[in-house]
Amino acid sequence: MDGDAGPPALPGDRLSDTTVTIAGGGLIGTSWAALFRHFGAQVVLWDPELDARRRAVQRVEHAAAQLIGISPAIVGGTLDISHDLADAVRDADLVQECAPETISVKHDLFRQIEAAASPKAIIASSTSALTWPDLSPALRLPGRFITAHPFNPPHLIPLVEIYGIDPAVVQRADTLYAAAARVPVILKKPATGHIANRLSSALWREAVHIVAEGIADVAGVDAALVNGPGLRWATVGAHLTYHLGGGDRGLAGYLEHLGASQERRWADLGAPLLDESTRSLLVDGIADATAGEDIATLATRRDEALIQMIRSRR
Amino acid sequence: MDGDAGPPALPGDRLSDTTVTIAGGGLIGTSWAALFRHFGAQVVLWDPELDARRRAVQRVEHAAAQLIGISPAIVGGTLDISHDLADAVRDADLVQECAPETISVKHDLFRQIEAAASPKAIIASSTSALTWPDLSPALRLPGRFITAHPFNPPHLIPLVEIYGIDPAVVQRADTLYAAAARVPVILKKPATGHIANRLSSALWREAVHIVAEGIADVAGVDAALVNGPGLRWATVGAHLTYHLGGGDRGLAGYLEHLGASQERRWADLGAPLLDESTRSLLVDGIADATAGEDIATLATRRDEALIQMIRSRR
Repeated sequence: MDGDAGPPALPGDRLSDTTVTIAGGGLIGTSWAALFRHFGAQVVLWDPELDARRRAVQRVEHAAAQLIGISPAIVGGTLDISHDLADAVRDADLVQECAPETISVKHDLFRQIEAAASPKAIIASSTSALTWPDLSPALRLPGRFITAHPFNPPHLIPLVEIYGIDPAVVQRADTLYAAAARVPVILKKPATGHIANRLSSALWREAVHIVAEGIADVAGVDAALVNGPGLRWATVGAHLTYHLGGGDRGLAGYLEHLGASQERRWADLGAPLLDESTRSLLVDGIADATAGEDIATLATRRDEALIQMIRSRR
Repeated sequence: MDGDAGPPALPGDRLSDTTVTIAGGGLIGTSWAALFRHFGAQVVLWDPELDARRRAVQRVEHAAAQLIGISPAIVGGTLDISHDLADAVRDADLVQECAPETISVKHDLFRQIEAAASPKAIIASSTSALTWPDLSPALRLPGRFITAHPFNPPHLIPLVEIYGIDPAVVQRADTLYAAAARVPVILKKPATGHIANRLSSALWREAVHIVAEGIADVAGVDAALVNGPGLRWATVGAHLTYHLGGGDRGLAGYLEHLGASQERRWADLGAPLLDESTRSLLVDGIADATAGEDIATLATRRDEALIQMIRSRR
């Protein structure tokens, strides 16, 4: 940290002139750190806890090795680990907040960040459960504040869901995330769960219903998803799928001929509760489906499969 | 068709001793035909319409070329095109029905098939919208009848959803589809939409809600899905995703700490209707998202992306 508070550089298609400060060294923060460093940024990772800072280095290197498996780093940036928030944010073009999902914790953090950061720095929250209106009251300059929600694991999954009120700031953020090979999707208005977690939640509700009703078990539902609609949704979205299924007139034809039957299908979907018996079915079912493998092994296998998928898109 | 009505061979891990009759030469039927021939079966494709039989050959060859892009055929089977249903089914080990989704049409067809087929032949319906109880009353031997729903396009997407009442028949069908590199998922009881279309319907309902509420447009929702949860669901199912997101205790831990908040999320999901204004938003949105590209071009691009994804899994 050299203390130079000159105007932040606008990122081009590379991030070598960009400083990104990650506020919070957990799984999401270290994943962001590895990603931005991989694409050439000067990364500063701040965490108040010594243990977290120590673990963070290992986590960043783990994610970095996976990124090299997807695309070799041409330049690569730098990584600095910091315990001093004011120092960590001073040169930042982007501060990516990755603190616990507690409004008061995040509000405190935003006040400290804003007090030390350049007025031109974008302050972005990785929040999953909270929204822009929940978080922005802590900011003196709310126009510079955005929610920028990554999808886990953030260094592998391209999606970043963005909402902000200043179009110029949103545009700068869009360019910056795109330079880190992300696919930013800009929301027109804030919503709990943004887009992706709303879709996930809707799908899981029916997945739970199918298990609760005894139509299939946990392993069967997951196998159907991964080898059927999930695979297809990795290539075409839900709306485009119905467009392709509508014959020559596409979605318009689909809605005309099958819109009413789709509404009847919606009426037939389940609205399960996570009561004790359903919880038992789910927990027993996932134990069967995973045959006792531990979370770390399963996550590693997921990451390897994701890396192969992402490589296949190039 | 040699008229030999000997006992049907049980498929091993290859299909060279297996005769599969496809009843119906539309998109689904020709896709099945290409798939089974690719994996070594003697395929007979029946359709009552001359035009359909003529188009069928082209469609089978198109699908066959895509299959070679995924896995070169070691042996390859044969294809016979037939206008005579009794003759077409006489030697079949499996009759895969792919007729229009009208109960009376399918019932008639099953009666004709059963009158001419060997008693040991499995009769399978590709039905998407109907269920085993809707269709089985037409069969004299309902134990040999199964629903076996593929996911479009069937020669590319591995999923086949199976339901039947005779475990031995279901097991034989499972082996047979697996020999054609499918991933069969066996339902414990029949359900409208089986598993995958129920999940698709649930997700699309929320995707429509997000557009109707003005949170994002059609292109934004689809981009979020394809680059976020869709990509992840091509590697891990919905239940396993929550297991991996639950910390050391997995799904049990998730349900304990976040089960109540998931129920609140479910309560916040939308229940849109496909009224005129929503239909306009969807149709205009898909026109923007596809930038005027025609259905055939979009479907070809989907297929190419699917082929790359499937190759990456090997």
